[in-house]
Amino acid sequence: MIVPIHLENSSITEYAVTIDKLPNLSFDTKVAIVTNPTVSALHLNRLLSKINANDLTVVTIPDGEEYKTLDTVVTILDKLFENKLDRKSLLIAFGGGVIGDMTGFTASLYQRGIGFIQIPTTLLAQVDASVGGKTGVNNRFGKNLIGAFYQPKAVYIDTDFLDTLPKREFSAGMAELIKMAIMFDSEFFNFLEKDDLSFKESLQKAIARSVELKAWVVNQDEKEAGIRAVLNYGHTFAHVIENETKYKRFLHGEAVAIGMVMANLLSLELGLIEENEINRVEELLIKHNLPVDYEIEDIDLFYNKFFLDKKSANSKIKFILPKGIGDFEVRDNISKDIVKSVLSKFSKAKLK
Amino acid sequence: MIVPIHLENSSITEYAVTIDKLPNLSFDTKVAIVTNPTVSALHLNRLLSKINANDLTVVTIPDGEEYKTLDTVVTILDKLFENKLDRKSLLIAFGGGVIGDMTGFTASLYQRGIGFIQIPTTLLAQVDASVGGKTGVNNRFGKNLIGAFYQPKAVYIDTDFLDTLPKREFSAGMAELIKMAIMFDSEFFNFLEKDDLSFKESLQKAIARSVELKAWVVNQDEKEAGIRAVLNYGHTFAHVIENETKYKRFLHGEAVAIGMVMANLLSLELGLIEENEINRVEELLIKHNLPVDYEIEDIDLFYNKFFLDKKSANSKIKFILPKGIGDFEVRDNISKDIVKSVLSKFSKAKLK
Repeated sequence: MIVPIHLENSSITEYAVTIDKLPNLSFDTKVAIVTNPTVSALHLNRLLSKINANDLTVVTIPDGEEYKTLDTVVTILDKLFENKLDRKSLLIAFGGGVIGDMTGFTASLYQRGIGFIQIPTTLLAQVDASVGGKTGVNNRFGKNLIGAFYQPKAVYIDTDFLDTLPKREFSAGMAELIKMAIMFDSEFFNFLEKDDLSFKESLQKAIARSVELKAWVVNQDEKEAGIRAVLNYGHTFAHVIENETKYKRFLHGEAVAIGMVMANLLSLELGLIEENEINRVEELLIKHNLPVDYEIEDIDLFYNKFFLDKKSANSKIKFILPKGIGDFEVRDNISKDIVKSVLSKFSKAKLK
Repeated sequence: MIVPIHLENSSITEYAVTIDKLPNLSFDTKVAIVTNPTVSALHLNRLLSKINANDLTVVTIPDGEEYKTLDTVVTILDKLFENKLDRKSLLIAFGGGVIGDMTGFTASLYQRGIGFIQIPTTLLAQVDASVGGKTGVNNRFGKNLIGAFYQPKAVYIDTDFLDTLPKREFSAGMAELIKMAIMFDSEFFNFLEKDDLSFKESLQKAIARSVELKAWVVNQDEKEAGIRAVLNYGHTFAHVIENETKYKRFLHGEAVAIGMVMANLLSLELGLIEENEINRVEELLIKHNLPVDYEIEDIDLFYNKFFLDKKSANSKIKFILPKGIGDFEVRDNISKDIVKSVLSKFSKAKLK
């Protein structure tokens, strides 16, 4: 089953909530699919059976975040030039977030920009990376530091691809989906509490709503000057956790889950949310096998690492906080002492 | 003297025709100037005396088209990361077209896009490359094949930099300037015929009008779907000439001058322009020391090379032709025989 999202120019203009069968994708121009060996082995034949193109190339790149580099993008670009793709050709990103980010970036660069579509195969990519137009690669200075804002022509979300997704990766995707509900939609949160997402129809509804919310946010603020920053709820903390654990112990979504619990505690301290609400969030995260505990060894060190985050320019830390469930508040004037005391409470509570 | 062009978002919104003194450029953010050793030796001190920034870095890259590569862009990016530029930092392109194209491209990539301004130091860059938002680099498959559409925040055009420009390069810039007059503005053409551009005031007027026309075109059609293609007048032929002479015999503007004469002859053949008009164009080109002769050794070979041009997708060659002086016509249905016969006439006339 498919959720097509129609995009036009550089902003999202229409979002189709009807869930249709995968249309037969027919192209009268050159098409290149960019994928990795894992996705290719599991799903490429199915995709190829749905695509009708005169001239089709498959570019397979190694699997993993460590290959999300400019060198890999150059390798893809060279393949496209060798196959003489022109300005009217189309790229298809077929894989998770790494594939999507690199394919979109490659599309933005090739002859100053050709069209591309996203067919994300992980839950995280379906609800997050494939929508919003952020593309790019990592370098030795950090993650996503080189890239472009570049919108896909369409995003095709097919939950059948998730059948082969490792459970832990599915849960990591759920963290970003739950994030959208907490920030923007209390009814959606209620739905997530009550419904069993192992039923595909419920899962599709949940993904559709999450994507719809993200598209709504990005449409208002493509370049993250305002409301788009709200999507970083949990992330300010998560980036420090990931840095401290050297990106090894947690998947990104897992770190975000812990980060949301931390942000919630700060929100509680400031009187923006009630205790029963933060408990409901914690229960939903646990229900989806997400971690909510983390032992902070050195509170000062943890706090200082907020300033490593490139999103915290000019030494002001912007905290994205829930205001109850379904609304948010952005604060950049919270005193160091309050933050440290909350971090200390969190860490102690988790040590019990 | 300075012609500031104010740009906002991704399209040109205002063009200031008043010629003011160079304002003192004051920045409260990190600034990096990208330049080359030639421009640096001649003019960097003067620029530095005009810039007031808290934190300024100068990145010097080797001079020449052969360094217009992704590798050089990575070198610049690394310098910016080492100097910890953030999303609010600013790049300044200080040099000719190569510096402008690479600096703009680097700005588009750094943390998914930071601001940049153009201070072009060659006539060609002043009237052409610095306005329009085309950025990019060459690779082994061809010129400008990797890049982005990315607009500068402002362009500062200062004709004093032209005092040190080699005469041949000045003439090459004149070709693009004359091109604008032929395509869009007969009065401007009359002005160029009559005025002596060795007077700086006349030169400034000419540059201002040329930039104004280019900004007007780009504003209507940033991504070259329609009218922007008219800027390729003379270029379809020039690209073949450059290819045949391995980019060694002619500067780009010189090849464009010859290409315009070829296009004019085709226009005459089709009854779009009169003989006395194409003579006036030729005289103006000669007055500016531009070549108007070229011996085509093999007409068939020359014709077939039109299809090497990436701008000729789908095997239709688009000819940009003058309709008298000051207007244009775009034709993509001219028969092979007519084009070849005109090329033959051109070559024979030049052999006399």
